[in-house]
Amino acid sequence: MAQKPGIPKGTRDFSPSEVAKRQYIISAIKHHFETFGFQPIETPTFENSSTLMGKYGEEGDRLIFKILNSGDFLANTDVTLLENKDSNKIASQISEKALRYDLTVPFARYVVQHQNDIVFPFKRYQIQPVWRADKPQKSRYREFYQCDADVVGSKSLWQEVEFVQLYDNVFTSLGLNGVTIKINNRKILSGIAEVIGAKDKLIDFTVALDKLDKIGEDGVKKEMLEKGLSEDAIQKVQPLFNFTGTINEKLHKLNTLLASSEEGLKGVEELRFICDNVTAVGLGESVLDLDVTLARGLNYYTGAIFEVSAPAGVKIGSIGGGGRYDDLTGIFGLKNMSGVGISFGLDRIYDVIEELKLFPETVTEATKVLFINFGDNESLYAVKAIKKLRESGIKSELYPDAAKIGKQFQHADKREIPFAVLTGAEEIANNTFTLKDLKSGEQALVNLDELKQKLQ
Amino acid sequence: MAQKPGIPKGTRDFSPSEVAKRQYIISAIKHHFETFGFQPIETPTFENSSTLMGKYGEEGDRLIFKILNSGDFLANTDVTLLENKDSNKIASQISEKALRYDLTVPFARYVVQHQNDIVFPFKRYQIQPVWRADKPQKSRYREFYQCDADVVGSKSLWQEVEFVQLYDNVFTSLGLNGVTIKINNRKILSGIAEVIGAKDKLIDFTVALDKLDKIGEDGVKKEMLEKGLSEDAIQKVQPLFNFTGTINEKLHKLNTLLASSEEGLKGVEELRFICDNVTAVGLGESVLDLDVTLARGLNYYTGAIFEVSAPAGVKIGSIGGGGRYDDLTGIFGLKNMSGVGISFGLDRIYDVIEELKLFPETVTEATKVLFINFGDNESLYAVKAIKKLRESGIKSELYPDAAKIGKQFQHADKREIPFAVLTGAEEIANNTFTLKDLKSGEQALVNLDELKQKLQ
Repeated sequence: MAQKPGIPKGTRDFSPSEVAKRQYIISAIKHHFETFGFQPIETPTFENSSTLMGKYGEEGDRLIFKILNSGDFLANTDVTLLENKDSNKIASQISEKALRYDLTVPFARYVVQHQNDIVFPFKRYQIQPVWRADKPQKSRYREFYQCDADVVGSKSLWQEVEFVQLYDNVFTSLGLNGVTIKINNRKILSGIAEVIGAKDKLIDFTVALDKLDKIGEDGVKKEMLEKGLSEDAIQKVQPLFNFTGTINEKLHKLNTLLASSEEGLKGVEELRFICDNVTAVGLGESVLDLDVTLARGLNYYTGAIFEVSAPAGVKIGSIGGGGRYDDLTGIFGLKNMSGVGISFGLDRIYDVIEELKLFPETVTEATKVLFINFGDNESLYAVKAIKKLRESGIKSELYPDAAKIGKQFQHADKREIPFAVLTGAEEIANNTFTLKDLKSGEQALVNLDELKQKLQ
Repeated sequence: MAQKPGIPKGTRDFSPSEVAKRQYIISAIKHHFETFGFQPIETPTFENSSTLMGKYGEEGDRLIFKILNSGDFLANTDVTLLENKDSNKIASQISEKALRYDLTVPFARYVVQHQNDIVFPFKRYQIQPVWRADKPQKSRYREFYQCDADVVGSKSLWQEVEFVQLYDNVFTSLGLNGVTIKINNRKILSGIAEVIGAKDKLIDFTVALDKLDKIGEDGVKKEMLEKGLSEDAIQKVQPLFNFTGTINEKLHKLNTLLASSEEGLKGVEELRFICDNVTAVGLGESVLDLDVTLARGLNYYTGAIFEVSAPAGVKIGSIGGGGRYDDLTGIFGLKNMSGVGISFGLDRIYDVIEELKLFPETVTEATKVLFINFGDNESLYAVKAIKKLRESGIKSELYPDAAKIGKQFQHADKREIPFAVLTGAEEIANNTFTLKDLKSGEQALVNLDELKQKLQ
């Protein structure tokens, strides 16, 4: 009953070297999360559907993977709905659990559920996979990891300062020099909309402005007109289309542009606080920039908005993003909990590091030494030595079968194992080992201590 | 629209200290997997249903979580089946993916799918969650981790020797002294059945024998009679009911008992090789024992069978198990691939370590030092110092708001942060820091280098 094996579209197997590279990135992110005082939590792979449905918009509901109830799931369904093949309504009758769609909603649910055990402000990180029934395409998967850090329960702008530092620390430690950490503020976008008399068109306005990179000034203006913004309003935002200069120059321009909007000026003030302090503390290899076109998930964010773009020359979307949302847990009944957080895009970071050839060679180094198998007596001698090497953390193996020597060396070669050890009658008699460097071909007769030293 | 938040039964949230403790165990397991030359792979959370269904028996099929197809999933279903509410048949029409049920079948699928990229013998480990729609009960969850190491493509018994060592290394490093690694061999069970003339009743015989611990000699005999074993046959296995002594003594008894069974004697020979070599190489704090009643997953294993029990006094089921299976990948069309592997029961190991109070105190140590927030100017000074501490790997935080000092100290206390730093006007003027040990209450005025040293 052989089947041609495969995996569902949009999912991936990860080979040993891929796992090692992913772990290298995740370890860097975890390390910095922890030095910043974030603590890990984990939530279940599936949540009650009621926890997830309705939290990500109509499109989101459609993309949530639903789990079929176990047992006789049709028993209590409505026959008329079945006959009408009403998939939508039947779905909620035969499925009460769904796969995690992001880490933010489960985090909000966690905070509310465990609010009595949590010390606020609560700094948590979470690195777990999420699932979306999206159309799979290049760099878009149905199963992928999210790496999130959030603080809930504090409105302090020092959090925003720290998140910029955190991005910088992670990317600098990964060798990704020249990453741009873009920052904006929802209040600035609201202020602009207010100033140009298009407060009711905030979403249309920002969605259009967000496309400046892609469709250019004319394209954005055309879209704004189509969405009902007036010529006059568009004229007023003209400075935004060529919004260059240092952060201070940009803040100055915004101050002028937003002079009549209280909310807008508040946004400028917040941005100034964040940027001034980030500059005063200093960044590593990343660059901070103010990008007034940055809108991401506008409905969600209420203050700072972050997005990170890869070093110049690497064509890829954002490798991180986040922001502040003033009512994280309200959907679950806990009001007035301000949250702010950022996310790292593991898959894209992986692609960028791969493209720039920045993975250290040691990342994928697995077994260090293969002991050649000459038969059971020799193997016992080998296994005793291997035990000592492993105690010193040296990854060591015995070739399991007394196969032809050539085959065993070939195995070491294919697996890129750098050293082999030979233990024949003579070595055993003298309590020594012949260590062979498989790259140079050099051989040396050594005792156990020397062997350990050479391999460490 | 507040909802009372909760999670599906049989699933768990993990708090920061729980994640830390779980990671402590997983890190130990990973470390030893890797020193033994095992390499990590990861497979998708959901597989095509055809990959999983029919691989775990009828009961297994029932316990597999199925994922509802996206979109209009009822469109192409059979109306008659719908009208008859035939859940079973409809399930396969509206669900083509299912959650991973164990790590072995996905591993077999992986090996076959990637056979051209794999160097055999292939030593892989995999630490990922699996899901079963089991009735939740104490220590049995619907979502739980499996930690598996397997070798595929070699029949060498040195693998079995190494797996015993691997168990010992992991449990010894976790401080779990006195773990018993029980070993048996399918061929011995077959041999016994053959010798007593009950070859056709092998399963009934071993299932009964496996219960010796629980229902005692009389209970086992009663069950054997009920299953149709003869009085005569039961008389022949009498030695097994009081099967004590050293491993060598047990092997000697088995040699006599199985003298007329070729297969049985082969099993004795295999066990002798494994036990002799394990003894010659030496174990840490674990004990190896031969347990002829050990049967676990008999249909599956063809050679060695392993099971690990917790130190005496801890009442819990097995904390690990495994064995050899001669045809791992045949179900996916790749014949003659012998596999052997072991698994660690993360949840039970966690419970045992908790019960014996063996988690090191440092495991749950999160943030080391909290900088008290005296306002924005002082905070900038603090954040600059925090940056330096973090570069040295010291987990450091600024309290985000300039709240009352008492509240800030209370926060440190609740979070069990051991140190606080105060930075007032005087400290800033002198480029110093007041470091307070929150346990002893001692204070010291230090410079940045001293601060780093004291916290490291």
